[in-house]
Amino acid sequence: MAQQKKMVEAITSRDVDFAKWYTDIVKKAELVDYSGVKGCMVIRPHGYAIWENIQKDLDRRFKETGHENVYMPMFIPESLLQREKDHVEGFAPECAWVTIGGSETLNERLCIRPTSETLFCEHYAKIVNSYRDLPKLYNQWCSVVRWEKTTRPFLRTSEFLWQEGHTLHETEEEAREETLRMLNVYIDFYKETLAIPVVAGRKTEKEKFAGAMDTYTIEPMMHNGVALQGGTSHYFGDGFARSFDITFTGRDNTLQYPFQTSWGVSTRMIGAIIMVHGDDDGLVLPPKIAPIQVAVIPIAQKKEGVLDQAAQLRSRLLDAGLRVKLDDSDKAPGWKFSQYEMLGVPVRIEIGPKDIENNQCVLVKRNTREKLVVSLDNLETAVADALSHIHDEMYNAALKNLEEKTFTATSHEEFLDTAKNHPGFIRAMWCGDSACEDQLKDETGGVKSRCIPFVEEHLADTCVCCGKPAKYMVCWGRQY
Amino acid sequence: MAQQKKMVEAITSRDVDFAKWYTDIVKKAELVDYSGVKGCMVIRPHGYAIWENIQKDLDRRFKETGHENVYMPMFIPESLLQREKDHVEGFAPECAWVTIGGSETLNERLCIRPTSETLFCEHYAKIVNSYRDLPKLYNQWCSVVRWEKTTRPFLRTSEFLWQEGHTLHETEEEAREETLRMLNVYIDFYKETLAIPVVAGRKTEKEKFAGAMDTYTIEPMMHNGVALQGGTSHYFGDGFARSFDITFTGRDNTLQYPFQTSWGVSTRMIGAIIMVHGDDDGLVLPPKIAPIQVAVIPIAQKKEGVLDQAAQLRSRLLDAGLRVKLDDSDKAPGWKFSQYEMLGVPVRIEIGPKDIENNQCVLVKRNTREKLVVSLDNLETAVADALSHIHDEMYNAALKNLEEKTFTATSHEEFLDTAKNHPGFIRAMWCGDSACEDQLKDETGGVKSRCIPFVEEHLADTCVCCGKPAKYMVCWGRQY
Repeated sequence: MAQQKKMVEAITSRDVDFAKWYTDIVKKAELVDYSGVKGCMVIRPHGYAIWENIQKDLDRRFKETGHENVYMPMFIPESLLQREKDHVEGFAPECAWVTIGGSETLNERLCIRPTSETLFCEHYAKIVNSYRDLPKLYNQWCSVVRWEKTTRPFLRTSEFLWQEGHTLHETEEEAREETLRMLNVYIDFYKETLAIPVVAGRKTEKEKFAGAMDTYTIEPMMHNGVALQGGTSHYFGDGFARSFDITFTGRDNTLQYPFQTSWGVSTRMIGAIIMVHGDDDGLVLPPKIAPIQVAVIPIAQKKEGVLDQAAQLRSRLLDAGLRVKLDDSDKAPGWKFSQYEMLGVPVRIEIGPKDIENNQCVLVKRNTREKLVVSLDNLETAVADALSHIHDEMYNAALKNLEEKTFTATSHEEFLDTAKNHPGFIRAMWCGDSACEDQLKDETGGVKSRCIPFVEEHLADTCVCCGKPAKYMVCWGRQY
Repeated sequence: MAQQKKMVEAITSRDVDFAKWYTDIVKKAELVDYSGVKGCMVIRPHGYAIWENIQKDLDRRFKETGHENVYMPMFIPESLLQREKDHVEGFAPECAWVTIGGSETLNERLCIRPTSETLFCEHYAKIVNSYRDLPKLYNQWCSVVRWEKTTRPFLRTSEFLWQEGHTLHETEEEAREETLRMLNVYIDFYKETLAIPVVAGRKTEKEKFAGAMDTYTIEPMMHNGVALQGGTSHYFGDGFARSFDITFTGRDNTLQYPFQTSWGVSTRMIGAIIMVHGDDDGLVLPPKIAPIQVAVIPIAQKKEGVLDQAAQLRSRLLDAGLRVKLDDSDKAPGWKFSQYEMLGVPVRIEIGPKDIENNQCVLVKRNTREKLVVSLDNLETAVADALSHIHDEMYNAALKNLEEKTFTATSHEEFLDTAKNHPGFIRAMWCGDSACEDQLKDETGGVKSRCIPFVEEHLADTCVCCGKPAKYMVCWGRQY
């Protein structure tokens, strides 16, 4: 019990210091180790297994919507990056540059991709000739580099893993459909797989991606009311196509520019999982991406028959297609309970001599600590049901948090008061002028427009900042 | 038919110009496109899908042998790279260096990983404390960069994709077992999945990996008799552990250094697949990693019922778990035949009005062009059998080529004569002195020791070069 206590004490409470609580979990749940290079992280087995499960699920969704995977080089020559003016302005300040290759100084320095629009465009210009070659629906899984000043594991790192979809279409309509289709894939994925609700909408001019005509975003809310940009989908029009000379012969035999999109999500999602679902005992993982879904813990394991029975439960659950770990190490059950709680394992099964006598086991749900006595006759069904309920409960708890911490402000004063006293999102009307965004951000010390939600409401007639006629309802909030 | 002819004519014959034939396939089978950065390639959907299938298969084998995936940063600070003397000497000349990050010159330049021993060591030093923490069985899938002067798609590129396993063990014995276990995983994978036989053995001192005590290798032979280093597994002893201060408290309570291995294979394997199995009509893909295993081609598809029947065959084969493509585009069947031959699709199914009348279809094997008339009643079995036979036939054809092009030389003269006139491997005795390796390489213009095979034979008493007493039989050959 001493060891168990020590582990639990080692975590800062979520409500006392959210930032420290986050860092503690990241380390104690063995998700990440810091590396010798500033802002770069080692993703450890438990963290990487979460990422693999995320990849598997998303990759299936991408392929079901007709996308193919490719791999582009990690280097972008400076001249290529400069081909699209807005794009280079947005990314140049964050670039890492290779200037020496094989002991020779390069004639032209190479940027390590911060994102790969330019590389996809260069390739598309070569392979697209006719409307018959369209659409091109490509995606790649890779690492990208953005030289960040302040870094935090998963949330903001100089190197991170992500996927970036890049597509090319015959018409504006098709490209716009694709932009929203992929945003919806993200929304579904967050809900169905990560058990995270999001606010979805369009970014304001000021918050758009460098070079995009429209940027759409999903914004989950962390437990403390702060937003995390959870994924974006961009519509580029034919701007990149013009800059990179991508043309095709249309159905009417004229030369045309195609329309383009890109969309991406990253390892940052693991940060969202931690901050939406985690608690004072550690990680709480959504069952669909948990590397271990069920931990089987034998009680009084030296008693005859206990380990045998535990091993049987393990193999029954494996046969049912679940990811299971039996911990038969010589550590105390209490230590094991804490350990698998820290790792976020959704279901714990305890099995001891008395349980065996009664043909039962004890099932403990990580999210609610609910204990269920389960007959061994219907173990598989009980565990499957528990995992399914856990997912729903986690989603509903996150939704409740989102709803409780979403406020409405109809006056400037109310906006400032809410921003000061109530962590969370603020719904408020806006005139459309970015000067008002700047002013609100300054006055509140960081509250920014998250998005213009797809679901709009008419809360008032005037902009919450300047009082001029309002154009949009905006969802505002602080962000990671 | 004009289009079909044009496609076929566009490929250089394998026997006329092997290098050009290779490049033609790489382009025509849409595996790769060149990028604007010297030596970096765009891996296109067909090429990347092959890589994904390779990954899936190997990753399963790694996990079955107890390994876990992680992700290390792509940057290695210069001082970290320099910690192991032999290692840095081997890799420094090929490094790409980042000197500027976020518009500031870095205090210490960062190498983009050419391989990650140093990063794993830095991490292991932090997380390993006791014998209870061992073994550590880690693997990572990533891209690495080695600044190459002469590059060729898949075979030698400045950036390539690979996996690198890095493991740490309590004893030398365990680490040596791991080194050979993983070499055997590669041997099995080449045979069972890629249908490629290899010569396996130990590298000579001269050909060892920088920093390794022993390097083991698998060497498949390409159709033209040239070797490709197909994968390596290294035993490091405790050399890296000492350089990086990795210690653990042993069972006897003393501080000890652990023993280490690393092992890797890369996208270069796709080059081997092309050069071992390909022919004058294009790629020939081993069924297990073919992105499309069966192409269904309707004949006279405008005739009533043909497309329906073709779609039925497609869905029956999909249900049987196969990767199937139905090509119902308006191109001529002949063009389609050529196209899927070029892409290396193992099985083609032709279905036309006459076939439907006779409740049959025509099955064509890519490797032998054998045509089988198959009753629709046992379509699934017939296709599964064909795929299985194709794999075996491809393996046997490659084995025949390897055996026919493996020669024995027992005198210096015979060695030089064989090297000059018979492309392939030469088995010959060697004294163990690297001066003899140098001399043979110079005299033959590039024939090097591939390995000291696990299966040794006593061909003669003396070294084929210097005439001194022989220690080993070596397999020699030119390499890519």
